[in-house]
Amino acid sequence: MKVIFDANGGDNPKEIIKGAVDASNEFNIDIIFVGEENFIKDCLNDLDYDKDKISIVGASQKIENDEDPAFALRKKKDASIVVALNLLKESKADAVISAGSTGALLAGGLFLVGRIKGVKRAVLPTSIPGLKKSTMIIDSGANMDTDSILLKQFAQMGSVYLKEYYNIDNPKIALLNVGSEKGKGNSLAKETYELLENSNLNFIGNVEAREITNTEADLVLCDGFVGNVLLKGIEGIAEFILKSLFYTLKTGHGSDNEKQFMSNILGNFSKKLDAKEVGGTILLGLEKPIIKAHGNSDAKAIKNACAYAIDIYNKELINKIKNNLGEN
Amino acid sequence: MKVIFDANGGDNPKEIIKGAVDASNEFNIDIIFVGEENFIKDCLNDLDYDKDKISIVGASQKIENDEDPAFALRKKKDASIVVALNLLKESKADAVISAGSTGALLAGGLFLVGRIKGVKRAVLPTSIPGLKKSTMIIDSGANMDTDSILLKQFAQMGSVYLKEYYNIDNPKIALLNVGSEKGKGNSLAKETYELLENSNLNFIGNVEAREITNTEADLVLCDGFVGNVLLKGIEGIAEFILKSLFYTLKTGHGSDNEKQFMSNILGNFSKKLDAKEVGGTILLGLEKPIIKAHGNSDAKAIKNACAYAIDIYNKELINKIKNNLGEN
Repeated sequence: MKVIFDANGGDNPKEIIKGAVDASNEFNIDIIFVGEENFIKDCLNDLDYDKDKISIVGASQKIENDEDPAFALRKKKDASIVVALNLLKESKADAVISAGSTGALLAGGLFLVGRIKGVKRAVLPTSIPGLKKSTMIIDSGANMDTDSILLKQFAQMGSVYLKEYYNIDNPKIALLNVGSEKGKGNSLAKETYELLENSNLNFIGNVEAREITNTEADLVLCDGFVGNVLLKGIEGIAEFILKSLFYTLKTGHGSDNEKQFMSNILGNFSKKLDAKEVGGTILLGLEKPIIKAHGNSDAKAIKNACAYAIDIYNKELINKIKNNLGEN
Repeated sequence: MKVIFDANGGDNPKEIIKGAVDASNEFNIDIIFVGEENFIKDCLNDLDYDKDKISIVGASQKIENDEDPAFALRKKKDASIVVALNLLKESKADAVISAGSTGALLAGGLFLVGRIKGVKRAVLPTSIPGLKKSTMIIDSGANMDTDSILLKQFAQMGSVYLKEYYNIDNPKIALLNVGSEKGKGNSLAKETYELLENSNLNFIGNVEAREITNTEADLVLCDGFVGNVLLKGIEGIAEFILKSLFYTLKTGHGSDNEKQFMSNILGNFSKKLDAKEVGGTILLGLEKPIIKAHGNSDAKAIKNACAYAIDIYNKELINKIKNNLGEN
């Protein structure tokens, strides 16, 4: 298997290169780095790796997070994401991993690599931790204006993903809503409820945002605007709480031991909430595996994202989505 | 001043009666209890109060949280909320405080008491704590399907509320969105941005959900579906984090002192997040002061809600909304 790494994307390009090399060594895979050639070579000088397994394709530009994705894709022909996705399209490799702009990766995935036939939009699934188990949120921010038919298709793709990648048999799908009863919510929620209820999906009804860390649902469905607000809101409040507690801890009265005890627990908990362990997430609905890694990924996160890409490839997830789309 | 208390609403009717009596004693106000007469009399037997200041109006029914508000209002003519709101409409008192169903209170407010002339919908403002200061979320769940014109009016009412009640000069209004730049978001967000930018409101641009506890905005604007998801999501994750930390604390290795130290900090922080200190929130846009108290309010929360109602009344908030609606 051969994986393309976007070496210009993300906050720590050096970590991307180290993580990719670690992955190549550990998982015995071939790698193409796409990015600033001299920088990549410099980084590689400090690392041990099998020269036959690693190649470089130059790309002088980078698409920033605050650029308009569609505009930037047209303007920056030599952006690493553009070059990487074109290589993927030409089947020069089996997957792309990028820690760059989510919007550019999604738009590039759609325009340069293309959607699976019959898929109307691509989505970004995001997993969040819970008291009993993790829950997947779809759409976590790819599609701003959606309708019930689109949401149903997101649920179908998510259901195949949960079954084939996470081995969850008959995944439970819930609709994010403002109340648990049928008939609650805005018109999009009401229409989507009807569609899901009459589908072959394992629809278990509405779930409120309060229950998101304590739901039996494997997948919680919402549009990308709502999903983005929910996920960023959760992220922000988690940071707020941990910061406030650390502050109280530091400025409060207590012995060194007492402070150290609490500081350790808070530190471990912060780590648990940190997404780096997972490494990346696939953009569902595209013709080939395109993996979004976190912008601030370190080498370990990149290696984990690569392990994930290998799994996606070996389990033939994309073929399975193709084959199962019409079923529900 | 005379305040009506819904004695059937909420989880702890006994606490409502105690809190109201405390308020009557402390603030020297008249009270009408609306609810189960015998129950109210029994509760009053245990309390010290000025008999001239307290009266009871019987109401045998209660609208539950899971009932359809509009249907329940029509069906349950003797529900405490219906009787209370009719008394308010007939000017038998100056404000209603209820810890009952938000939906029923809102629908009853609209149908029985009525909107301020020119106001299209009523909204529920909710204040959340932040690192530097609190921020108000409007709409926090009253209106499911909205448009940009409605959202602008919510911002206008919220702006008057912040200025007149909280003494915030020229309140800063931000739009909840998925990115900080103009042009981000769904069509509702884009349209609302345009409207706010061209209004006389002090519009400071988009704010992401991640920044909600760390924004300079005094008011963050969104539709009721999104606001509900954000607020409940925040509530859920805060509970999840505190529960997880308490669990780790209890089951982890540490001396009694170390555990006690951390337990105290977590306990105090939980209290800080608890909404009971505030007591209640007004439904903005209605002809008279209708205050929603939390379902699980204790006596202290009810007394605080009453102090808040007195403030709203003395500051003539509703008149000020009436006079300022056309301005922006």
